[in-house]
Amino acid sequence: MKLYDYFRSSAAYRVRIALNFKGLTPDDRAFVHLRMGNQRAQDYLTLNPQGLVPAFELDDHRVLTQSLAIIEYLNEIRPEPALLPDMPEARARVRAIALSIACEIHPLNNLRVLNYLTGTLGATDEQKNGWYRYWIDVGFEALERQLARNRETGTYCHGDTPTLADICLVPQLANARRFKIDLTPYPTLVRIEAACNKLPAFALAAPARQPDAE
Amino acid sequence: MKLYDYFRSSAAYRVRIALNFKGLTPDDRAFVHLRMGNQRAQDYLTLNPQGLVPAFELDDHRVLTQSLAIIEYLNEIRPEPALLPDMPEARARVRAIALSIACEIHPLNNLRVLNYLTGTLGATDEQKNGWYRYWIDVGFEALERQLARNRETGTYCHGDTPTLADICLVPQLANARRFKIDLTPYPTLVRIEAACNKLPAFALAAPARQPDAE
Repeated sequence: MKLYDYFRSSAAYRVRIALNFKGLTPDDRAFVHLRMGNQRAQDYLTLNPQGLVPAFELDDHRVLTQSLAIIEYLNEIRPEPALLPDMPEARARVRAIALSIACEIHPLNNLRVLNYLTGTLGATDEQKNGWYRYWIDVGFEALERQLARNRETGTYCHGDTPTLADICLVPQLANARRFKIDLTPYPTLVRIEAACNKLPAFALAAPARQPDAE
Repeated sequence: MKLYDYFRSSAAYRVRIALNFKGLTPDDRAFVHLRMGNQRAQDYLTLNPQGLVPAFELDDHRVLTQSLAIIEYLNEIRPEPALLPDMPEARARVRAIALSIACEIHPLNNLRVLNYLTGTLGATDEQKNGWYRYWIDVGFEALERQLARNRETGTYCHGDTPTLADICLVPQLANARRFKIDLTPYPTLVRIEAACNKLPAFALAAPARQPDAE
């Protein structure tokens, strides 16, 4: 299997964490440089018409896309350690936390969206950064409230075992740190992030530790 | 169980379709009027700090959020008819199609995002509508290419049985129609939409048929 990766893509970062948990190492890895526009090269678009990273190519050359779909797949073919709890209600809670990051924060701060703001809409850099911060704050405020008040929150987002929710949380916090967002209003998120980053599966997936890191 | 719904929310529309497939009727339904800002009322925020629709309250008062997490839950507690195929690779394909709508198109065209564009960034109505159309076209172009070229596409997005992918596709096409987007470049999407809307589970979930429709 082959991972199409980019060190700074938080969606690719999620998949790297999941692969580490499952003890799976792709036979091959390609680095798609997003800032240089390599995701729009014809070869890559043939592989993944979405023009997004990550993509995950199986040995039969089938290509899986969308980080959460890839992680659910990894969790199905290699059930241990489980990245989702057993009970349907708990699975729904974990997936909802993951989706509240993957659907409500991350897509708004994608590179192509920021480019549309400054390019097509003529937003200033200040407006673009304000936009970036605003959607992180809106998303984190809701998430902090959800996690802080819920008894199912433990060392990690759900109990004392890392799950898909943590796998989405940590890369999003890394993005927020890169944009120097004040994280003091989110003590629960920061506490969980610290617990996660003590685990090799998270630490080894960090952007700075990837071969294509700048 | 109780569904917090809004006729025009495409995320709620997805859950309505899934409930119909599973033959489940919520004992109660509340309508959260998004244009009147009812999702920001304190009562609703206590229930769902995300301030988004849908929310799904279980009999034990646990509240599930995020449409895809709710649908996966429904599919787990009531496996028939299955909304995901059996094989992991096929499940990944279906989830990726669903996520390419739920993560790459829908969040950019959410009401609160459009409000930020016109309110905070001072975008004109024309710019706002251009934004809306742009992200639908970008998403639909990729999806049309993915579906048209893949042999696993059948009557529906994946084979001849409706899945989670179709459940995301049909509401997104309804949004596109409401914005009078030219759909001729997307014949595969339109063909699948027509097949879906022949099924009562889809037809009965349509916005115009809900009690709160205007």
